[in-house]
Amino acid sequence: MKAPMRVPLDGLPSQVTIYEVGPRDGLQNESTIVPVEVKAEFITRLAATGLTTIEATSFVHPEWVPQLADAERLLEVLPRAEGVRYPVLVPNERGLDRALAYGVTEIAVFGSATETFARRNLNRTVEESLAMFAPVVDRARTEGLAVRGYLSMCFGDPWEGEVPIGQVVSVATSLLDLGCTELSLGDTIGVGTPGQVTALIEALVAAGVSTERIAVHFHETYGQALANTLAALQCGVRTVDASAGGLGGCPYAESATGNLATEDLVWMLNGLGVDTGVDLTGLVETSRWMAARLGRPSPSRVVQALTPAEPEGARHD
Amino acid sequence: MKAPMRVPLDGLPSQVTIYEVGPRDGLQNESTIVPVEVKAEFITRLAATGLTTIEATSFVHPEWVPQLADAERLLEVLPRAEGVRYPVLVPNERGLDRALAYGVTEIAVFGSATETFARRNLNRTVEESLAMFAPVVDRARTEGLAVRGYLSMCFGDPWEGEVPIGQVVSVATSLLDLGCTELSLGDTIGVGTPGQVTALIEALVAAGVSTERIAVHFHETYGQALANTLAALQCGVRTVDASAGGLGGCPYAESATGNLATEDLVWMLNGLGVDTGVDLTGLVETSRWMAARLGRPSPSRVVQALTPAEPEGARHD
Repeated sequence: MKAPMRVPLDGLPSQVTIYEVGPRDGLQNESTIVPVEVKAEFITRLAATGLTTIEATSFVHPEWVPQLADAERLLEVLPRAEGVRYPVLVPNERGLDRALAYGVTEIAVFGSATETFARRNLNRTVEESLAMFAPVVDRARTEGLAVRGYLSMCFGDPWEGEVPIGQVVSVATSLLDLGCTELSLGDTIGVGTPGQVTALIEALVAAGVSTERIAVHFHETYGQALANTLAALQCGVRTVDASAGGLGGCPYAESATGNLATEDLVWMLNGLGVDTGVDLTGLVETSRWMAARLGRPSPSRVVQALTPAEPEGARHD
Repeated sequence: MKAPMRVPLDGLPSQVTIYEVGPRDGLQNESTIVPVEVKAEFITRLAATGLTTIEATSFVHPEWVPQLADAERLLEVLPRAEGVRYPVLVPNERGLDRALAYGVTEIAVFGSATETFARRNLNRTVEESLAMFAPVVDRARTEGLAVRGYLSMCFGDPWEGEVPIGQVVSVATSLLDLGCTELSLGDTIGVGTPGQVTALIEALVAAGVSTERIAVHFHETYGQALANTLAALQCGVRTVDASAGGLGGCPYAESATGNLATEDLVWMLNGLGVDTGVDLTGLVETSRWMAARLGRPSPSRVVQALTPAEPEGARHD
């Protein structure tokens, strides 16, 4: 079967926006530098499948993430499809300057729900990182840009362990108070389960946050991403982050599991009759094409299932 | 983190029985014959983790499933742990004779919701297969045995495509009418999604079937197993089939994905505060031990995540 039977489930939204993170979050840990032309073609192919929001790259310091050191060049060569948003990650005011110079209309900042990860990833306390974002968000909004606030480690932290829901709500509402237009709740290490997802979203709603401003960002590290997504949809969330082909796992493990694969998400949403506008067949083809560029199979189960068996080492061109 | 944060979700059962299928369903497609002593140790280790229902083997004809040709020998050497059920698959009356001779107290028959799979797997129509099961179930019940009725292809069929829910309900209720004490709804090719799961269970309940008699059996082929399990639990189902380490995929693919991995299920249920009685650490150790016996890594994401990185070819003994 190439498609699931369509049987809606009560209480779900009729339409979901997939926020595609493959070109940025998916590629950023790749040790082999992907040529800028390949990145541009990857994004163009993704847009052709019907994805309307594709995070293109990041203006972090090139030394931090060598894979994304070509951000300017990518924005120069990338053809823009009509109706498609191409947000860019921006860590600070200098990053915003660069983004504005290249005509970016939507940015994202990357915060942490825990002190340890804020220290390790941003070299700041949570409070200091919010202070760093404040002028970025403020100026971006003044310039008319949409601003997404990523919040990582919302469901657990590798150093701190459990993360209290109240702590997540506190940082999340601070990000929104700065002016962020959307909040992406990240399960960076993939440990969360559906009750925790529901409790966090309900706590945010109780704090006055509309589900329209909440996105969820799950990882497959413990296989929980799709069950957690279902729980989020049942709470009314309508934006889900995913990575084409499941890009974003550890590039050294054959069984790499990283971001929720866009294909696995689209399969579920197609079955549920939830509209995404995405052509699954084209998306699978795109992920197989990208997997061939990276030299290893996609960890997406849908991509694997819909890829015919063939001799080892065969390319998918 | 070695465990998820515990946050219950409203409307779920407080306790779930895991029906462990690894030793039978998980191993049956393995081309390399696993020695009977290894199978006995695998089952014994699984019982030691707290699993209370472990399908041990099958009395199908040895030519059909060479891996399980040692069924009698396994039942001779297998130490039984107190409070643990060891059901055995039985295809026909001759299989039942063999099972009774070896003191089996619980059997399972294996039906199909579709004509094509009934023909291919049982060489019979659905009607004829039910007629074949009738005397088996009848005699087993007379002998005081519990009888599980597996129903495969409930959510899609590789030859027929979509399977109407009414058709599944019809065969399912026929199985129960024969005297089956439990029904296991199988998504043999892994294509189902949560709305379909909910609709099928609700249709069965509407037909008079108690959720206490319904088990679900999902595969990870399209990555949907855990989301589907969540939907089933939300309908009140309290028995979930799973395979330790995710055994049961195609043994020729490194990225094999077969049955829902027991570890991935236990992680979610631990997070949800749903009691299973299973020690996850011991279960992961058991699956790593078995993976070393089979010579390839477990496809379970929890097993992968909780297994420290080490040199290639290392054994986990």
